[in-house]
Parts: sequence; C-alpha cells; structure tokens
Amino acid sequence: MDGAKFQVHSDVVTKATHEALKRRGVTNEDIAKIVFDMQISFNKGLTIEHCMESVESVLRKREMQHALLVGIELDELAEQGKLSKPLQEIVGSDEGLFGVDEMIGLGAVLTYGSIAVTTFGHLDKNKTGIIHELDTKYGGQVHTFLDDLVASIAACASARIAHRTRDLEEQGKTFEDLSPRDTTPEIHISGTDT
Amino acid sequence: MDGAKFQVHSDVVTKATHEALKRRGVTNEDIAKIVFDMQISFNKGLTIEHCMESVESVLRKREMQHALLVGIELDELAEQGKLSKPLQEIVGSDEGLFGVDEMIGLGAVLTYGSIAVTTFGHLDKNKTGIIHELDTKYGGQVHTFLDDLVASIAACASARIAHRTRDLEEQGKTFEDLSPRDTTPEIHISGTDT
Amino acid sequence: MDGAKFQVHSDVVTKATHEALKRRGVTNEDIAKIVFDMQISFNKGLTIEHCMESVESVLRKREMQHALLVGIELDELAEQGKLSKPLQEIVGSDEGLFGVDEMIGLGAVLTYGSIAVTTFGHLDKNKTGIIHELDTKYGGQVHTFLDDLVASIAACASARIAHRTRDLEEQGKTFEDLSPRDTTPEIHISGTDT
Amino acid sequence: MDGAKFQVHSDVVTKATHEALKRRGVTNEDIAKIVFDMQISFNKGLTIEHCMESVESVLRKREMQHALLVGIELDELAEQGKLSKPLQEIVGSDEGLFGVDEMIGLGAVLTYGSIAVTTFGHLDKNKTGIIHELDTKYGGQVHTFLDDLVASIAACASARIAHRTRDLEEQGKTFEDLSPRDTTPEIHISGTDT
Repeated sequence: MDGAKFQVHSDVVTKATHEALKRRGVTNEDIAKIVFDMQISFNKGLTIEHCMESVESVLRKREMQHALLVGIELDELAEQGKLSKPLQEIVGSDEGLFGVDEMIGLGAVLTYGSIAVTTFGHLDKNKTGIIHELDTKYGGQVHTFLDDLVASIAACASARIAHRTRDLEEQGKTFEDLSPRDTTPEIHISGTDT
Repeated sequence: MDGAKFQVHSDVVTKATHEALKRRGVTNEDIAKIVFDMQISFNKGLTIEHCMESVESVLRKREMQHALLVGIELDELAEQGKLSKPLQEIVGSDEGLFGVDEMIGLGAVLTYGSIAVTTFGHLDKNKTGIIHELDTKYGGQVHTFLDDLVASIAACASARIAHRTRDLEEQGKTFEDLSPRDTTPEIHISGTDT
Repeated sequence: MDGAKFQVHSDVVTKATHEALKRRGVTNEDIAKIVFDMQISFNKGLTIEHCMESVESVLRKREMQHALLVGIELDELAEQGKLSKPLQEIVGSDEGLFGVDEMIGLGAVLTYGSIAVTTFGHLDKNKTGIIHELDTKYGGQVHTFLDDLVASIAACASARIAHRTRDLEEQGKTFEDLSPRDTTPEIHISGTDT
Repeated sequence: MDGAKFQVHSDVVTKATHEALKRRGVTNEDIAKIVFDMQISFNKGLTIEHCMESVESVLRKREMQHALLVGIELDELAEQGKLSKPLQEIVGSDEGLFGVDEMIGLGAVLTYGSIAVTTFGHLDKNKTGIIHELDTKYGGQVHTFLDDLVASIAACASARIAHRTRDLEEQGKTFEDLSPRDTTPEIHISGTDT
C-alpha cells in the first residue's frame, strides 16, 4: 500500500471533485448554508464566508474526494441504466435498506470525530436545504449517494467550526474576530491538505 | 485474544447490565417507547411489546453489555467525584467536545449497520423521551455516557425492526401477523445471542 | 428510508452475490480456509465445514451483500475501462491512498464488532490465501475492492466463530461437539437472516 | 452540545495526557520506533525524529487525548481494584471478547482515515515494540486499554507519514529533503491543532 506509485496527481483529483459536484448541481454555497444554519446559534459573528472556507477545507481531504468521485459515478451510472442487475434497481430506487451510500458518507465523516458522526446522522434523517432537494427526485435523476455525501460534507464542515469555536474561546475571541481565510488556516500551508 | 480463558460467565454480565440500567433509572419500556415512536408510522400493527422484544434482543449483545457497563461506571465514578483531574471535570460537565461517550455508543450501534448509525446520530441530536430526561440533569447527577448509550440501544432496536419489517413484507405480512416473541426469533435459540 | 417500498427480493440479492463471487473466482471454501487457519489454534475440533457455515452466514447479511455487489461492480467496470477519469486510473491501479475499498469492507466488518475490525486490519495488511492471489494481478484484472471485501468476509466469519467458541465454553463444550450446521444456528430460522 | 461552556483549558488536557503516558511508562520515542519500523521501507530519508514529530501531532488531537485519559483511568482503577463487579474482573483480565478498549482506540484511529484503521488492526494483532511489552503483564499491572491506545497512536502517526510521503512525491521530494519540524507543519500554526 504505502509504497505504491501514484498515477494521478492530487490537483487532478481535486479538480475532478469540484467538477463532479458542479455537474450534479451542488455548489459550495449550498452546503455552507446548511452549516451556517446549524452553527449560527452557537457562534457570534459567524458568516456564510466562514462556512464556505470550512466547506472548502473539507473538500480538500483525499478521503472525501475519493468518496465523492465513487458516489457520484455510481449515481450517474444508475441514471444512465448502466449498472448490472440487481444493483441497477437497488441504486436506482434508493432502496430503504441499502446502506453502502451511508457507509461511504460515514467513512469521510469519521475523520472529523464523533461530533461529525452524530451531526451526519442528524442531517441524514432531517434533510435540510440542498440535501432535501437532492432527495426529492425529478424524472430519472438518481442522487442515492450524493444526498448522503452532501450531508457528510456539511457535517464535517460543521464539526470543523465547532472545534475552531473552542480554540477561539480559549483565546477570548469569537468568529467576529476572524477573517474567513483564518477559519481553516491549515489549508493555506503546503503539506497540510490531507 | 481469541484463546483467552473467560472468567466471567455471560449470564453474570447480562444480569449486571440489567441491574445497572435499573439503578440509573432506565427501564426497557422507556427505551421501547422511543423505538415505537420512530417506527410506528412505517409499521402497521407494531406494538410496544414488539419494541420491548427488540430492546431485549439488543441488550443481549456482548458489545452492548460491555459498553453499558463501562459507560455507567464512568458516570457513577464522576458522580462520586472519584475520577482523577481533569477527567473528573470533563465527564462531570459533559463538555461539548468530549467524544468518548458518543464513540462508545457508536461502537455498539455499528453492529446493526448503517441505518442504526444515522438513527443514533438523529437521537443524539434530537433527544426524545428518556434521553431528554437523562440529558436534563438535577443536582449532582451525571449521565454523560448514559444518554448516548440509551440512544444507541434505541437506534439498534429500531434498525432491528426496520430489517424485520422488510423480511415480513417479502412474506406478504406485517407486524400485525407477528407475536412479540417472534420479533427477534434468534434470541430464543441457544448460541445465537452474540 | 424505513418505509420505502422494496423492489428487489432478498433472494435475488443473495443469488446475485453468490454469482458475483463465483464469476470473480472466489469460492466459499477459499474464504473458509483463511478462517480455519486463523481459528484452529484456539478451537479444538474446528473443521473446514464449521468455517464454511460461518462464511455462509456472513454472506446472508444484507450489509455484506450490498457491499459485495457495489465493490465487484466497480472492479468490473474498471476492468472494462468504463469508469470516468480520474476514477478509472485510481481504481484501475489500486492506488495507495484510495480508501473507499477499505471503507466499504470496514462497513460490513463493523457489524461483527471490534474483534472483526482488528482481524480485518490484520488480513488487509498480511494478505493470506485467496486474498494474496487477488492482490497479485495478472493482465488487466482489477481486484481493488474484492481483496478488501474477501478480507471483510473472512474477518466476520472468524469473529463469529470466536463468539461461538465462548458460548460453547460456557456450556463446557468445544467445536468437536458441534455439527457444522449448528455453527450458525440462526441461519436456519426464518426472519433472522439480517 | 456545540455551545457548552468549556471548563477545562486544552493546555490542561494536553499536559494531563502527556503525564498519563509518562506515568504508565510509555514515551513518544517508544511509539515513534513502531512508526519508523513500519514506514522506513517506503520512505527514503525517514528518521526517528520525523516519526517523533508525527506522534506529537497525533497527541495534540482532542479525540486522542480524551481517549487516552479515559483508557488510562480505567486501567489504573482496575489495577487498584476500584471498579465494580463484574467490570473489575473483565478489565482486570483483559478478557478476549471485551471490545470497548479496541473501540476507544478505533475512535481515535478513524480520524486518520481507512489506512490508519487497517494499520491499527495489524498492530493490534501483531503487537510489536512497546505494545508487546504492555501486553505482557507483570504482577498486578493492567494495560487492557493502553496497549490498544498505543497501537492507535502509532497507526495514526504512520498514516500521517504515508499521506505526507505522497505530498512530497508530488513535489519531487522525499523525507530526506524535510526537517523533522516540517513533518507536520500544521502543528506550528495557531488554530489548527484539533
């Protein structure tokens, strides 16, 4: 494992992830709104820009990028009727006891700790904002994986802010004292984006 | 690991688990009510007795029993002021970013699959019934671990019923056709209680 | 979720799972051998037949069946060059930091508790038997997901036996006293196969 | 949750974590050695100092600090015979099917992604270095939780290096080009230590 030669540069994976989300009609701002709604009552001075920074930070994680590429691929293949039977029917209908979608979303969520896990469960049940829109299918659209993955991104970004809030409190500060760019300072330093 | 000689019989562990819950003021019926409220709209003929059977089934799992014994022990030690610093303060105040309680609850939940995980997250955020009562502390009570563990039991019992529902549907049946005892048939067979 | 109408009968999913494994060259006996090698030193009287029963029990779990159908589909699509870029390159080369394969395997493993998790990690690193063969690719074969999934099945079946051993010990018995059919008694009872 | 007032400063928790490890006879270097042995064959120029930096980074994570404080507390209480029955016997004997220790270790490991999970499983089974010493008890010592937690720290630090290796490869570099301080650059920036 560890020594395998890479064949795809991380910039390529990052670009593909953003394109895939865009192609499926999900913007960073859509996700940031969910984060903002969950965190505003706990965080004086929090803005949608802080939340956007947090979402972008989450989207730079390899674990999340890979989860998104796999999930969106399966949604699109199902939409095109290209999966083999009976997986085509299972994914195409987002059937109740199918759990691989939640599991892929959970895998990425776990990297942000237990708070992210419970927030993910909450969002997965009480779908808000863009998650609700994705869950309400029109025509032949399939979002079996994507709704769970968006819940996963929002849960991670929200947990990131909860931890950052605590760091700020210990310095006697709030988000009012913070420029959006400093929400996730690590994303501006080379070698810390994993 | 696998070959270690056991020193405590599983009947002793099962008995201790039930006693610990009772001592902390939580009855199987309290938990069954949460399960019933979550599942009744999906399940024609579901009764509180079916939910009780499902809760009992979950409480027979070793993974859950061990989680409960550890969590309740830590709550009680914190209540008595017997933990060392700073753990005493962290557990005693159920502080926001402490996640070991959720992680122990999650560990047991994972054995019931991804549906149980998202249900657990939902219950952990939107505390209902006895979970809400535990979260609302009086005097020196500490339920830092117990509220998460009760959410975990309820999530598992609820997932058990969701799976059972599906089995019944495939046989053209509903819970109306089922005696409570047959909610979890495996608990009446020797050697299947793990 | 819970109330969604099913469209695919569980017998169809079970059949598709067995066919997919067969098509990819993995037999239940291949997996049972890995289980046997891990458990024989702890279990007097354990036979390959007991291990076969345990493997079959694991393969009846919905969580595992869904994981296998998704993983094998992605392997086969990659083999046929039908995934979009850059996922095609990532899956096709089983690249080192891709973790969705382990995560899908882990999801199924978690349902058998923490012992299964550590056994899975062990098998994933120290690939033995059929897992090693799958990992050693010839020609254009892709087993990026399958090697992790076979490790997952073996870890679950092994954990199942470790728990069963303990039940037997408490009854003063060993696997010598057990017919293979009684390794996993729950699979012979209607409504317990989830 | 998110809005709870903190009562214990993170510096206090960090200090308590380091003191607890020291009190139990585990040094950062002991853990770094395990990491070095696992990663040296994949990483030209890797030194024990790079591994020390990675271990220190892991030990700054709240999730890991809380896990360590809880686990070591339970080990010490068991050593002093202060747990209630039957938990005292279960923890005191590190009994085979007790899984809360692995689950607490796993919770921290999950924050470093799937590679950390499989590495953790591997270390948990094939105990090396200080993990082996902890597992070999003398007198009344209890390390039921600590051996799993040390495996968890080592798995996280090792995964951190595997990801860093990849970042370096993309820049045409190896660990030879890196000062130990730059192994984990994020730990030198305020607000990134969670």
